[in-house]
Amino acid sequence: MTIMKTHTDYLFFNTPERREMVRITDEVSKIVEKSGVREGMVLVSAMHITAGVYVNDWEDGLIHDFGEWLEKLAPSGRNYRHHQTGEDNADAHLKRTIMGHQVILPITNAKLDLGPWEQVFYAEFDGRRRKRVVVKVMGE
Amino acid sequence: MTIMKTHTDYLFFNTPERREMVRITDEVSKIVEKSGVREGMVLVSAMHITAGVYVNDWEDGLIHDFGEWLEKLAPSGRNYRHHQTGEDNADAHLKRTIMGHQVILPITNAKLDLGPWEQVFYAEFDGRRRKRVVVKVMGE
Amino acid sequence: MTIMKTHTDYLFFNTPERREMVRITDEVSKIVEKSGVREGMVLVSAMHITAGVYVNDWEDGLIHDFGEWLEKLAPSGRNYRHHQTGEDNADAHLKRTIMGHQVILPITNAKLDLGPWEQVFYAEFDGRRRKRVVVKVMGE
Repeated sequence: MTIMKTHTDYLFFNTPERREMVRITDEVSKIVEKSGVREGMVLVSAMHITAGVYVNDWEDGLIHDFGEWLEKLAPSGRNYRHHQTGEDNADAHLKRTIMGHQVILPITNAKLDLGPWEQVFYAEFDGRRRKRVVVKVMGE
Repeated sequence: MTIMKTHTDYLFFNTPERREMVRITDEVSKIVEKSGVREGMVLVSAMHITAGVYVNDWEDGLIHDFGEWLEKLAPSGRNYRHHQTGEDNADAHLKRTIMGHQVILPITNAKLDLGPWEQVFYAEFDGRRRKRVVVKVMGE
Repeated sequence: MTIMKTHTDYLFFNTPERREMVRITDEVSKIVEKSGVREGMVLVSAMHITAGVYVNDWEDGLIHDFGEWLEKLAPSGRNYRHHQTGEDNADAHLKRTIMGHQVILPITNAKLDLGPWEQVFYAEFDGRRRKRVVVKVMGE
């Protein structure tokens, strides 16, 4: 019989740039280790609605491509209806929607069960202020 | 030692408009309360493939922007191959793909563990008929 | 009192085409059956960053539409920065981002709790080589 465990932690960000991709695989790994969970899942989810969390390649060229691509699909500086509230970040809400705002990572044998190139990223689209990601581990 | 619990519920929709964003944060909250789970996760997932579930801002301007943006990225009224089956809703399948069809929300201290602006929405892209969202709570 | 269980399995792919959508609902179902879990969730997640996993319609016309649409939103053959590493698959990383790289399916009464038209697909965007999807079941 196995005993269920949960463990909750938070990662904090305050990026110097408005838009930035921050690799967080190691931080999530450490939280999984600390949790003591050997088999289960960990949820990594942005708590702010102009940021995302995604899994993809740790390669600067591709990260650059993501930035250009998102700007093309969800351009900044347009006359969005949301901006009538005084905000200027509607594009950040759209960009984070394309990238996704959360991932679930499997934990097998007490480790993140990731493929060879899978890296976890925090995607900031409206930075320069304190923001938070919840990391919730659940398993046995 | 903790005891594992699951709880399954369903939300039903029949929107008057073909396309509509419906806030469901309170409904999901109530199901979490009812479940008695104090630490865990809740899956909120559209059971129909022309609808989505997403987390973003509860602001009418932005919701309007989402609608215009989705129409631009995945236009309706085009000559989609899917329409040879008699359907006219291929764009709804594409739009829901951009928004995402499910979210997982963390439960901490018996409450949804959401950031200050996070709200959960049901995104209908082919409404005016009865549809369903599954809400599955798992935890301790 | 309920006993928590986890079960981990992997699906392998080596698609003859570079881009291909492969239905995997039955394979996931079988793993859920084998796991013995009656209430819980199953994570189905691509372990390679040029592939995705999504839920949508099992209809050839729509699958064709998805292909054309993804090519329009994330075209191949462009001068991506990522290609300076010798790769030629930047578009595959972008396409899989739109489709999503993982889904969580609810398990109720020992079965996948899916809507009438929900089917699970593996979305390959850079195939012709061996790739893997993790299927992790958690529940009671």
